[in-house]
Amino acid sequence: MRFLSFHCDYFKYEVKKKSRSKIIEDLTDDNKIGKLENVIVLFISVEKQDETNPSYIERTIIEIEKVLQQLKVTDIVVLSFAHLFGELSDQEFGFNALKLLELNLKQKGYTTLRPPYGWFNELELKAKGHPLSRISRKI
Amino acid sequence: MRFLSFHCDYFKYEVKKKSRSKIIEDLTDDNKIGKLENVIVLFISVEKQDETNPSYIERTIIEIEKVLQQLKVTDIVVLSFAHLFGELSDQEFGFNALKLLELNLKQKGYTTLRPPYGWFNELELKAKGHPLSRISRKI
Repeated sequence: MRFLSFHCDYFKYEVKKKSRSKIIEDLTDDNKIGKLENVIVLFISVEKQDETNPSYIERTIIEIEKVLQQLKVTDIVVLSFAHLFGELSDQEFGFNALKLLELNLKQKGYTTLRPPYGWFNELELKAKGHPLSRISRKI
Repeated sequence: MRFLSFHCDYFKYEVKKKSRSKIIEDLTDDNKIGKLENVIVLFISVEKQDETNPSYIERTIIEIEKVLQQLKVTDIVVLSFAHLFGELSDQEFGFNALKLLELNLKQKGYTTLRPPYGWFNELELKAKGHPLSRISRKI
């Protein structure tokens, strides 16, 4: 996994259009739009190498928690993002990885928002301007 | 060079804090804040390999113009961005590369906005939700 993290005053999204992904998550009244404030927005790529690495979720969570603790933030956006120059995993593997990552973060007590997989979203955000407001990590 | 492109309804920034960069561009009344609408926001890393590649600016502009033409957009944000998983160039080289890129785009008639180098910025944007709204390219 690799992620780009933006520390934001707010983040909101609205589902706009179906992608050509093999996996299209069902839309519900709950997941078409979403918003969080004082939030870490994680743009995440699940990578080919994660498919054969049993500890990638655990190691990703360690890196995410370092960011959350440094910034004293408890709310997280888990956003599937293909554009971080990595070799992407199979889509089904990637979808399950993001769901598992979100579940693990929820179980640790964090508030999460995960826009549905396979859709193009309108995104609006205000990112802070401090030294740790943008971070990237490769697991 | 590598860049991540967001097609945005609007983008605005406000300079917040000096970084530890060797290069700190002077602030003026004109560059502390900025805003553009219907704009391509380019998060750009200048890379080590660009230092020995005489055609990197020209090739980057070809890729940027493909995006602009596909989306029928003429306004561009040139944003220095270290977090795209590339090996970064020397800072002075990178600063000059971004200025040169901006100058070339202006000379081609595009409207540009380049937040000053060496400062942390607050960023606010609304990114569209269509198939080409997020793109990444490696030159």
